[in-house]
Amino acid sequence: MVKLRVYVKREGETMTIKEQARKMKLDSSKMAVQPIAARNRALVAVAKSLLDNQEAIIAANKEDLETGQNAGLEAPVLKRLKFDENKIQDVIKGIEELINLPDPLGRAQMKRELDSDLSYVRETCPIGVIGVIFESRPDAMVQIATLCLKSGNCAILKGGSEAMKTNKILFKSIYKAAIDSGMPEGCMLQVEARNEITELLECHESVDLLIPRGSNSFVQYIMSNTKIPVMGHADGICHIYADKDMDVEKAVKVIIDSKTQYTSVCNATETLLVHRDGADKLLPELNKAFLAKNVEVRGTKEVRDIIECEPATEEDFATEYLDLIISIKLVEDVYEAIEHINKYGSHHTDCIITENTETEEIFMQYVDSAGVYCNCSTRFADGFRYGFGAEVGISTSKLHARGPVGLEGLCTYKYKMHGNGNIVADYAEGRKAFKFKDLM
Amino acid sequence: MVKLRVYVKREGETMTIKEQARKMKLDSSKMAVQPIAARNRALVAVAKSLLDNQEAIIAANKEDLETGQNAGLEAPVLKRLKFDENKIQDVIKGIEELINLPDPLGRAQMKRELDSDLSYVRETCPIGVIGVIFESRPDAMVQIATLCLKSGNCAILKGGSEAMKTNKILFKSIYKAAIDSGMPEGCMLQVEARNEITELLECHESVDLLIPRGSNSFVQYIMSNTKIPVMGHADGICHIYADKDMDVEKAVKVIIDSKTQYTSVCNATETLLVHRDGADKLLPELNKAFLAKNVEVRGTKEVRDIIECEPATEEDFATEYLDLIISIKLVEDVYEAIEHINKYGSHHTDCIITENTETEEIFMQYVDSAGVYCNCSTRFADGFRYGFGAEVGISTSKLHARGPVGLEGLCTYKYKMHGNGNIVADYAEGRKAFKFKDLM
Repeated sequence: MVKLRVYVKREGETMTIKEQARKMKLDSSKMAVQPIAARNRALVAVAKSLLDNQEAIIAANKEDLETGQNAGLEAPVLKRLKFDENKIQDVIKGIEELINLPDPLGRAQMKRELDSDLSYVRETCPIGVIGVIFESRPDAMVQIATLCLKSGNCAILKGGSEAMKTNKILFKSIYKAAIDSGMPEGCMLQVEARNEITELLECHESVDLLIPRGSNSFVQYIMSNTKIPVMGHADGICHIYADKDMDVEKAVKVIIDSKTQYTSVCNATETLLVHRDGADKLLPELNKAFLAKNVEVRGTKEVRDIIECEPATEEDFATEYLDLIISIKLVEDVYEAIEHINKYGSHHTDCIITENTETEEIFMQYVDSAGVYCNCSTRFADGFRYGFGAEVGISTSKLHARGPVGLEGLCTYKYKMHGNGNIVADYAEGRKAFKFKDLM
Repeated sequence: MVKLRVYVKREGETMTIKEQARKMKLDSSKMAVQPIAARNRALVAVAKSLLDNQEAIIAANKEDLETGQNAGLEAPVLKRLKFDENKIQDVIKGIEELINLPDPLGRAQMKRELDSDLSYVRETCPIGVIGVIFESRPDAMVQIATLCLKSGNCAILKGGSEAMKTNKILFKSIYKAAIDSGMPEGCMLQVEARNEITELLECHESVDLLIPRGSNSFVQYIMSNTKIPVMGHADGICHIYADKDMDVEKAVKVIIDSKTQYTSVCNATETLLVHRDGADKLLPELNKAFLAKNVEVRGTKEVRDIIECEPATEEDFATEYLDLIISIKLVEDVYEAIEHINKYGSHHTDCIITENTETEEIFMQYVDSAGVYCNCSTRFADGFRYGFGAEVGISTSKLHARGPVGLEGLCTYKYKMHGNGNIVADYAEGRKAFKFKDLM
């Protein structure tokens, strides 16, 4: 059935990234039409292939780890780079969960009759060609490649150079299993050299979406140097506002988790805003908990009048620490908190601690962020915890997908219209009139 | 209730576009929280204001028309520029339809329980600040401003300079009516000078979305010179593929409408692809119809063997004529037609003429366009004809909104999560487990 021409690369022939991306784009509809049974079959094969190649993968990872150690990589980076038997079990479990998720493609979102013999259906379909540039964790390679497979998208993948050997064998295992089980040749491409990123950024005629995952400056660089739409987030300056009507015990628990459960991530809290009428009861108790967790507190003058801490400057409120540091400021009321968050925040995830449902509602409505929370940790902002199975990233953009992005964010839709020789002139000149009847 | 500070511009004080856009962004949540009753009340006031100011609007438009005539503007441009009593009636009717459309905001798209005391709802909300740069038709000013009002978005509007006087009084009438009926001050801004466009393009920290409407080169210029996400389309190279199993009568009717019903628009057909086994029966008859409508035909050698016409070059297939010209090429089968369309098309709207449902299905699945049609005119690709009431434009982007964009395309969503002191550590360390129960 798939009769579109397959370009077969001859031995020794080399294509530029741009040429490969163009070919991928022109062939992407072959990937888009794969039925769900075939896509799931490919995922089963990918899981098996990872298991079959387990030893070689672990060996390659050991080489990467050694190279990293010799290059003096820091312990947290090495920890993220490590890809052992447990990690392989984890990613295989992730693939099994992905297989069980419903098909994101071919879903009717609207059905409308325009006239008795003219109607359309709006149906979900893949975006096409997704470029993903990600950091050192090799799990990202597996997660992103399999999310693209499940959603019928072609993928261009560029992993961190620290994980080069691990990523190479992971990609080979995934791609070969996908092709052998019937996915179209060329549906995935690995980009390895750092200078090839520059070339990838120029592929706006072929790549529909770029998802960069990495440091703030890296993501900013990508956003500033390509015409391809970029989905993701540069920084994550998340806030907690502790209202005067808070439950202090809940507040301390949620703030400590939001700040310390994992510090080097975008959904960790960086700034705490406290209602003036609640500061006296919250801050002393909270400060004890911060001390116990080695959190450095930076506060405004008003804060330092209540607890002993470092001074916070204007710059602190615009900083994503990604570390055991928190800035604290007192505010007049929920409105001042909202103003601060909308001005200094990154529209990622912000939380209010209050027992007052009216104040909660105001906060939820006015705060302009992908996630607005009440009485729970900002660390919940994550595709797995939202029940999406996995995520390609978290978006702070207002367009397309916002917040954690799973399968749905990798899909778009098309309008399929079926008629019987209908022409616009009949409607424009009054011989016929639209009926507009929704069929779902 | 709306307690956020309102910035009141003092007499004589001037702000740059960037400063005004920043202020609009920071205040945009005040617009976002306006209840539907208030937004509809504002729309009623806008319609009344346009009627009340009818004479002054028509007088201003006459001045624009005179200036245009003196400057030697062509007849079609002058026709589009004209804004008389009938046009005012039309836009008022449009506003009345908009008032009757359901509220696009605050709609629950998902509701999920993560645990017994932790759940979220994903709810639609406005995008925030929309910048629209549009062409000479003054109707566009009214349509776009009222679509933004209904969807709770702030808007920065820049109309064509030919319509400057008309736009000025239209904007004044709309804005004053909106403010007087309770919309927040500063929710709309008119940009008038051409050089202010450059400044607007730099407002990526404040403007969430740019919608340019105009010529291909103008839209390309916008896309290449801003970091703001752009929605719209540069060109519209729409195709019709006439299959061997077509009904010739339907084919002629649909092709003539698609090419000639209105030529200077993005959804007019520019290229016809014909199955080799259907060319003999279709082309001679079609050519007669083209002749009667003064359409210039450009065909490949194979086409010229059947009918007399101009030669078509490679360049023709990549050209949006926007004129009474059509290029024609014969193809081997539906797959070659698909390949041609995905390569040369602009992913706007493409149609197959066939009575064979299997061939139709292949075309609908493989063609990578916002609209894929069977047996009806490509001219149906339009927000009004899709039943959206009105449109801000047509998007050929794969992200966010695709095809005609109405109220829904001006909205995004946010996740509102409500907990009871829930922390991630409990789930990460195995003391609690997610339940993931969908509540809708």
